[in-house]
Amino acid sequence: MIWMNGERQRGDGPHVSASDRGLTLADGAFETMPVIDGTVFRLDRHLARLARALTTLAIAEPASMRDWIVTATQSAAGAMSLRVTVTRGVAGGGLAPSGAGAPTVVIALAPMPQFPAATYDPGLSVHVASGRRNEHAVTAGLKTLAYTDAVAAMIEANRAGFDEALFLDTSGHCSEASASNLFAWTGRELLTPPTACGALPGITRGAVLEIAAGAGIPAVERAFTMDVLLECDEAFLTSSLRGIAPIARVAHASIGRGAPGPVTDLISTAYRRLVNDECRS
Amino acid sequence: MIWMNGERQRGDGPHVSASDRGLTLADGAFETMPVIDGTVFRLDRHLARLARALTTLAIAEPASMRDWIVTATQSAAGAMSLRVTVTRGVAGGGLAPSGAGAPTVVIALAPMPQFPAATYDPGLSVHVASGRRNEHAVTAGLKTLAYTDAVAAMIEANRAGFDEALFLDTSGHCSEASASNLFAWTGRELLTPPTACGALPGITRGAVLEIAAGAGIPAVERAFTMDVLLECDEAFLTSSLRGIAPIARVAHASIGRGAPGPVTDLISTAYRRLVNDECRS
Repeated sequence: MIWMNGERQRGDGPHVSASDRGLTLADGAFETMPVIDGTVFRLDRHLARLARALTTLAIAEPASMRDWIVTATQSAAGAMSLRVTVTRGVAGGGLAPSGAGAPTVVIALAPMPQFPAATYDPGLSVHVASGRRNEHAVTAGLKTLAYTDAVAAMIEANRAGFDEALFLDTSGHCSEASASNLFAWTGRELLTPPTACGALPGITRGAVLEIAAGAGIPAVERAFTMDVLLECDEAFLTSSLRGIAPIARVAHASIGRGAPGPVTDLISTAYRRLVNDECRS
Repeated sequence: MIWMNGERQRGDGPHVSASDRGLTLADGAFETMPVIDGTVFRLDRHLARLARALTTLAIAEPASMRDWIVTATQSAAGAMSLRVTVTRGVAGGGLAPSGAGAPTVVIALAPMPQFPAATYDPGLSVHVASGRRNEHAVTAGLKTLAYTDAVAAMIEANRAGFDEALFLDTSGHCSEASASNLFAWTGRELLTPPTACGALPGITRGAVLEIAAGAGIPAVERAFTMDVLLECDEAFLTSSLRGIAPIARVAHASIGRGAPGPVTDLISTAYRRLVNDECRS
């Protein structure tokens, strides 16, 4: 028996069962991808990352998932965002995954969100979250449904007047932002935290490492602390929907000149070109 | 537009929207409680813990929630389990919590699960999870929807042939099991990890501390390592539905005699009496 908002509910609805383990236990994973004129940017890499999460959670990947994604996206015009969520499916109580039905797959296509130029163009202000990323979790580096800590960090950041939240790992290294990877340009090297610091292996992050290599910018995955970040010349965040987002300040310290710098601009321009080239070819 | 398992969906269903942030971001919290003959055991303490989680997540507690719980449970006969889930509600994409609708409350009442005597009576075998509990999370000690790591630990434990999974915190202290608190009887003291080690402040855990105090058993919340656990005379897990579950072994080492001991039995009997007395008075 299920009640929702005080009303007794029955039967199957067109949405997700209230007994779906994706809802009750965050027992699932997801991917968010840009879609340009009907083509998903780097779909294979997103599906490979999703497959790794499903393997760790012992959720069988639905055989038709790729077909469903293609059907949902192929006639979409312009810039859209696609989210694919896979949960273990509907089950009774308890934590053990036995007894769940077939996995639930939710494919949601929406217009690309607008990122306000007034916030993004001058560079983001970034709060250092009081909570830490757990680089020692079995699910570290996997895009599971467990985004509660990221939501809590964004609430904390917004209350303190910041645009974004940056997590340190439990050892004190920079890890990643609430749903973005971090890059820091020291003047000599472009650094990004390794997955060993709890960072997600972002698809945009991977593209930035490729772009840097192609442009002769030395880029390395290496652990670094807040001291290094605060001393760097430029910093930016990367994510699939937002692309490259410059950072103007962290806590109350400016990063470099406190405005987007030339390396960030170069990477940003090259990334937009890459997405367009791959999706419109 | 939403597709589920390949079929395009429309409108509101009797279940939870596929855009509910409880599903998409584990943006919510829950409580699981025993109900005996229509009375929820220690409902006030469960609701107080739920309120703390909702405060951290800045989700407004629905004013009618307690009334809905009473309506759902008051005529339930025998032993039932009640789960109350509160999410931020339905929203568009993005992590920032602004723009979400009213919170979603799911109240689910089910027969009390059966815990097989063949597993529980001789004492559980407990695997030490390879992943760690994050005692440095803002949500540590809160019962949010983010149970992904607990599910992954149970999968790991079951594959290795164990009944349960025990988490260490990132500093190496014993924290808690997948969804239970840990107690260890050293022969002189009954130890349980403090919430500073990432343990949830369990309602059953609290009842056990009361019972021990009343029975003249010295009980303390103190950090301890695996060495201490492996040397103790008895150990048990506590949770709202399962009550007191003796531990027979951890990894491949027996705890004490490898069978439920007298302190565990005393606490277990007293706990069952306490639940019955409070619910049937």
